[in-house]
Amino acid sequence: MSKTSVAVIAAVSAGAGAAVTAAMYSLRSSSKVETVAATPITTTSPAISPPKNSLSAPSPPVFAGPATTFPTPATSTAVAVPGADSPVNPSGLFEYGFPGPVADVAARQALISSFDRRLRNPHWVVEHITPASLAIRDGDRKHSQFLEDPAVPEKFRAKLKDYFRSGFDRGHQVPAADAKWNQNAMDETFYLTNMCPQVGEGFNRDYWAHFEDFCRRLTQTYPSVRIVTGPLYLPKRDPTDNKWYVKYEMIGNPPNVAVPTHFYKVIFAEDGKVGGNVALGAFVLPNAPIPNEKPLTDFEVPVEAVEKASGLEFATKLPVQRRKRLCAEASCALVIKDYADKQKAFSKGKR
Amino acid sequence: MSKTSVAVIAAVSAGAGAAVTAAMYSLRSSSKVETVAATPITTTSPAISPPKNSLSAPSPPVFAGPATTFPTPATSTAVAVPGADSPVNPSGLFEYGFPGPVADVAARQALISSFDRRLRNPHWVVEHITPASLAIRDGDRKHSQFLEDPAVPEKFRAKLKDYFRSGFDRGHQVPAADAKWNQNAMDETFYLTNMCPQVGEGFNRDYWAHFEDFCRRLTQTYPSVRIVTGPLYLPKRDPTDNKWYVKYEMIGNPPNVAVPTHFYKVIFAEDGKVGGNVALGAFVLPNAPIPNEKPLTDFEVPVEAVEKASGLEFATKLPVQRRKRLCAEASCALVIKDYADKQKAFSKGKR
Repeated sequence: MSKTSVAVIAAVSAGAGAAVTAAMYSLRSSSKVETVAATPITTTSPAISPPKNSLSAPSPPVFAGPATTFPTPATSTAVAVPGADSPVNPSGLFEYGFPGPVADVAARQALISSFDRRLRNPHWVVEHITPASLAIRDGDRKHSQFLEDPAVPEKFRAKLKDYFRSGFDRGHQVPAADAKWNQNAMDETFYLTNMCPQVGEGFNRDYWAHFEDFCRRLTQTYPSVRIVTGPLYLPKRDPTDNKWYVKYEMIGNPPNVAVPTHFYKVIFAEDGKVGGNVALGAFVLPNAPIPNEKPLTDFEVPVEAVEKASGLEFATKLPVQRRKRLCAEASCALVIKDYADKQKAFSKGKR
Repeated sequence: MSKTSVAVIAAVSAGAGAAVTAAMYSLRSSSKVETVAATPITTTSPAISPPKNSLSAPSPPVFAGPATTFPTPATSTAVAVPGADSPVNPSGLFEYGFPGPVADVAARQALISSFDRRLRNPHWVVEHITPASLAIRDGDRKHSQFLEDPAVPEKFRAKLKDYFRSGFDRGHQVPAADAKWNQNAMDETFYLTNMCPQVGEGFNRDYWAHFEDFCRRLTQTYPSVRIVTGPLYLPKRDPTDNKWYVKYEMIGNPPNVAVPTHFYKVIFAEDGKVGGNVALGAFVLPNAPIPNEKPLTDFEVPVEAVEKASGLEFATKLPVQRRKRLCAEASCALVIKDYADKQKAFSKGKR
């Protein structure tokens, strides 16, 4: 196993201003994807029907947006029945409820989000943009307001007051500007389940905004672009003891919402053909000011690096022969000119 | 909502030796449990059948132990289909695979574990002990060895080498000593999915071991005891800037397994009657040396404190009228005498 592993430095330093250093991950080539997950081992022991009570896990919270449907079981159920000679039955605990974790999956018009109840940020938010969707301009962020999300049980919810005077922006994961095609679709991007605490100046209102713009410009080349965005909490080496530590702030009083150290985007740029090619690009940026001059390619990482860091998996069902590398096909460069002024104009609105 | 909230200090300081301070959580009374999760809102918009490909999430990894059955779907599926007038379809991404997170649930003879692929520790491990199960002594830890868990895909797995020379014990969540009734049952407690990095001296080999012994002694009073054990990563206030930070080490090279700041146990002591009373006790201990003199009750917290800190839920289906408070019914005190010597004798084996 270790022979096929390579140590890769995910170069995610923010340059001069930000003391955010690289995180190292052991990566395996994508052609050697682990197949354990897709191959449940069956047992030869007799199947005993579990007690009915222990089968039913709590229903996941589902929020019904106006134009979507939700057959969404977002929870886990585990039932194990002891053998005839076992003196114990660990699964009996589930009669009191299955502990979870539950990822509150909320499907909206322009996005689908999965929420982390422990860190009170999304695990991921997925979106889809096309030349046609971006051409429609029926929504305006002036009419939208930030909202706590009823899709999440109150005790696990991120709150508006957590962000208030925290020093961090309520940073959209799926940008409002990607959902201008409908006011309601845009409004739904303002749920806090689509938000993470982001550094404002130099990041959310600057480099990150240019990066979002880069994603939109991909629709000039690709007829369909899908983007997964989310937070990361990466370790950093302490030079004094040479050990790796993860450290992040929790905002709110009492502390409630974690401040991610980094953010990822995994971009799927489709050629528009059924079973066609998909240009994949993965990027990890520090939640810190980044100079506009910094090349975007400095933040490009293998998809597997995001997987190891997030515990998630992307593109497991996308055959290798359909995969292309985005930055080999397209120019992975930001456009700062002109855009910067426009950006400044609504920077206050992003808070 | 805020009127029903109370700020509670979960007093989890370890005393003189360990600079681990309190974590504050906003708690709601258990009689006001949020019902959003159990009440999916149905939509009136027309249900459109999603494309077949986007329905199927990856099968969860399941490990088949010798005497258990596993009808265990441990993953989430989210499907949203755009309205007829929507220019986008965010759920189309799932044709490339559902990102997760997947909690690898593994059911063994003496425990069931749920694994956190991001932090490479369990979310929780549940067990069941009875006077009868503890009376059988067919297993001996001398015959057991620590094992990487094939229930978890290789790229998310905790490794033996991560713990090697890390300075931390491979700390059992479900203790080996609770599974002496069968050698195989005990062997299965040695999977790394039942392990977290724990401070050895003063904690895993001392106070924590006495705490595990306390749980076993509860079977002298209760005919059936269920215990959920797991790690926490709690924030601590930085006195210099007065902000809350979570900080934990990652062991392994490259860094792979998080070192929890704290551990919880939620104990369900049953009276043995169907629909009978359940004495509930929740405890949060710092992953640090704790003097034996420290009263166990110093670490007692409301169950809701563990829920907020872990993002999990316990006992949601246990009616309030069946709940008792463990430390009101039983003496929540450790027995250090005699036990200490026995403990020292096998302390090396715990590493």
